[in-house]
Amino acid sequence: MTTEKLLMTPGPTMLPPSVLEVMRRQIIHHRTKDFEQTLDALQQGLKHVYGTKQVVITLASSGSGAMEACVSNLFSVNDKVLAVSIGNFGDRFAKIAQCFGLDVIRLDYEWGKAAVKEDIKAILDKEKDIKGILITHNETSTGVSNDIKAISELTRDTDILLCVDAISALGGLEMRFDEWGIDCVVAGSQKALMAPPGLGFIALSEKAWNAAKSSNIPKFYFDLKKYKAGIEGLGANPPYTPAITTMMAQAEALKLIMEEGLENIYERHRRLALATQKGVKALGLELLPDEKDSSYIITAVRAPEGINIKNVINRMNNEFDIMITGGQGKLKGNIFRIGHCGYCSGTDIIKTFSALEICLEKEGYKFESGMAVKAIQNELRGERI
Amino acid sequence: MTTEKLLMTPGPTMLPPSVLEVMRRQIIHHRTKDFEQTLDALQQGLKHVYGTKQVVITLASSGSGAMEACVSNLFSVNDKVLAVSIGNFGDRFAKIAQCFGLDVIRLDYEWGKAAVKEDIKAILDKEKDIKGILITHNETSTGVSNDIKAISELTRDTDILLCVDAISALGGLEMRFDEWGIDCVVAGSQKALMAPPGLGFIALSEKAWNAAKSSNIPKFYFDLKKYKAGIEGLGANPPYTPAITTMMAQAEALKLIMEEGLENIYERHRRLALATQKGVKALGLELLPDEKDSSYIITAVRAPEGINIKNVINRMNNEFDIMITGGQGKLKGNIFRIGHCGYCSGTDIIKTFSALEICLEKEGYKFESGMAVKAIQNELRGERI
Repeated sequence: MTTEKLLMTPGPTMLPPSVLEVMRRQIIHHRTKDFEQTLDALQQGLKHVYGTKQVVITLASSGSGAMEACVSNLFSVNDKVLAVSIGNFGDRFAKIAQCFGLDVIRLDYEWGKAAVKEDIKAILDKEKDIKGILITHNETSTGVSNDIKAISELTRDTDILLCVDAISALGGLEMRFDEWGIDCVVAGSQKALMAPPGLGFIALSEKAWNAAKSSNIPKFYFDLKKYKAGIEGLGANPPYTPAITTMMAQAEALKLIMEEGLENIYERHRRLALATQKGVKALGLELLPDEKDSSYIITAVRAPEGINIKNVINRMNNEFDIMITGGQGKLKGNIFRIGHCGYCSGTDIIKTFSALEICLEKEGYKFESGMAVKAIQNELRGERI
Repeated sequence: MTTEKLLMTPGPTMLPPSVLEVMRRQIIHHRTKDFEQTLDALQQGLKHVYGTKQVVITLASSGSGAMEACVSNLFSVNDKVLAVSIGNFGDRFAKIAQCFGLDVIRLDYEWGKAAVKEDIKAILDKEKDIKGILITHNETSTGVSNDIKAISELTRDTDILLCVDAISALGGLEMRFDEWGIDCVVAGSQKALMAPPGLGFIALSEKAWNAAKSSNIPKFYFDLKKYKAGIEGLGANPPYTPAITTMMAQAEALKLIMEEGLENIYERHRRLALATQKGVKALGLELLPDEKDSSYIITAVRAPEGINIKNVINRMNNEFDIMITGGQGKLKGNIFRIGHCGYCSGTDIIKTFSALEICLEKEGYKFESGMAVKAIQNELRGERI
C-alpha cells in the first residue's frame, strides 16, 4: 500500500482538498471578468493576512524572486543596508543585496539564535546612513523566529526601510504591516498560505513606494511600479501572463484562512509548535534554539549523538511516507526539522512522532517508547486542532 | 446552461484532461526522487521540442521573465544588439534590452509584416559590432511568423547571438535549435505546450553559455548559471522552490506531445491555420498579414468596415462562451484574432466560425451565412485533426 506523502517540511506544505479541486479547473483567460474576481479575492485576502491597506502584488515567481524585487525596487547601487542573518535565508537576502551592488553591512548570528533588537540599534546608532534593514521573519533553516514587532520600533519613525522576508511566516505568525510600520514584506504561496508554489507576494509601505521612485537598479520583470499601476487600473493587470491556476488556488486558500480566522490560525500554529516541543523533550532530545526563540512554523531538533539522523529521516520517508528534513549548510547532519505550518493538524503531529519513535528506535536510539506521543496527546488535550 | 469557456486566444490555451488531472494531485516535495522523475521528463521532453542537446532551464516565471533572463545573461551593458520588431512582443524584447543598458538598434516593421532576412543582413553588414539579434518567432499581436530558419543562416557561423522569443511558437512551429544554430530560445508553458501559465523556458547554445561568462549585468533570480549547475548535479536543482505542480503538468503535456509526434503536431497547426484562413475568406474578410506570412498559431483578421468588432467579440464570449480577441496597441479596434494552437482541433475551429457567423450577422455584417463553416469543413475534409 502506498499512502499519500505527508509533508512535515518547511515547504511546500500540504494542500487542502478544496484548493486541489480549484487546481483541476480548466484554464480561464486572465483578461476577463472571471479572473478579475480572482484578483479581487486575492487582493482582499492578502491585505487581510498582511494587515495592510497597501496593495499586495502577486508575482509569478518563487519567494526568492520577490526578495529580489524588494532589493531592486527599494534601493540604489551603493545604498548602505544592514543585512541581519540568523541562517540560510538571511544569508540569501544579504547575497541578493550584494549582487545588486548595495553596500551591505552584515549582522550575523550563530545558527539557532534569534536577532537581538539592541544589537541592531547599536549598529543603527553607529552607522548614520543606513537606508534599510533586511531581515527574516521565520528562519526555516534553524527553526528560529525573529521578533519583527520589536525590531520595527527601531525603524518606524525613521527613514530606514524595514524589509522582511516572511516567506515561511506569513499566515502562520502574526503580521501587522501597517500597525508595526513595516516597509516591505515578501511572502510565498507554498508555506502557511496553503497554495502550490509558484507565487511570490510583496507589499510596500508609502515610504517604500517613495523610495522606489528614485531606485536606479535596472529591473523589468520585477518592476513593481508596473504591477501597482495594473492593480490601480492604470495599466495591464497583471502586466505579464500570470500563473492563473495557482492564483485561483491561492484565492481559495485565502478563503479558508478567512473562514478559520487569523487569530485562530496563529493559535493553532502556536499549539502545534508547543506540542512538537513537548514531543521532542519526551524523546530526551534538545531543540536547536532556545525555547523562547523556537519557531511556531518549524521545529529544529539536535540529532541525538551517535545516531545517523539521515537514516532516520529516510526511514520516515520510505517506511511511513512522512517527510521531515535534515539541516542545511553548516547544520547538515546535526539537526532534523519538523514543519508544522499551513494545512497541518494535531493528528499530523501525533502521526509524525509515532513514526519518529519507531525510526529512532530502529536506528539504535534509546528512550522510553510511546512517551513522545503521550506527551503530545496530553499537550493537545484531545482538542481538535 | 453555462458551458466551459473555449479559449481561441493567443494564450493561455485549453488544457487537456490528463494535464488537469495532474494539477489536482497533492503536492510533493521538490528535493525527492519523485520530483527528480518530473525534472528528467521535463528535460527530455523540452530538449525534444527545442531540438537540442543543451539543457533547457525551467523558470518559475512568465515568458517575459525568461526574455529578461536572455538579455541579462547573454549581454553586458552597452553591448550593441539588433532588435527586430514586427509587433507588440518584438517591442517588449527591445524594451527589456534598453532597460538593462544595451545599445539597441531597432529594425521595425509595419504591424502585419514579417521580418525580411535581407534587411537584417544589410544592418549586420553595416554595423560591425553587433553582439546579438533579438527577434520574435511568432508575433501573436499581428498573427505573423518570422522565418527563423532563414534568419539563422546570417548568424550561425558568426559570433552574433541569435535570440528568439518563441513563447507562442514552441511546440506549434518547427524549431531545430541545434541544427539551425540558434543561440537562445525562450518559451512559455501556456501556449502550444498545453500547460498552465507560470513557467518560462530557456535554452542557450555553447556560444551563448560562453558569452554568459562575461556578462556584467547584475542578476540573481534569473542567473541561468545556477540553474544549469543544478541540472548538471553541481548545485541545488532547481536553486529555488520551483512551481512543482505546474512542472508536473508540463511533464504530462510533453508526454502527450511526444505521443502525437512533433511532425504531426506541426501539420495539425498548419491545417487548422489554413482552415481558419479559408473560413475568413468565405466570410469575405481579409487577413491582416500577407497569406505567406500568416501564422499557424493565430490568425489576425481585418475587422469588416462599419462593424463594431468589440461587440462581435463580446457576443462570442457572452452568448457562445468562445473567447477570441481583438487587436493590441495600434491595432485595437481594427482586427480580431483567432488562436488555434496547443490543445485545439478542427471541431473547435468549426464551432468558432459557426458562432462567429451568427455574431457578425447580429452586428449587421452582410455575407452568405453558412459559407465559412462549409469552407472549413471542405478544407478539413472530415479528417479528425
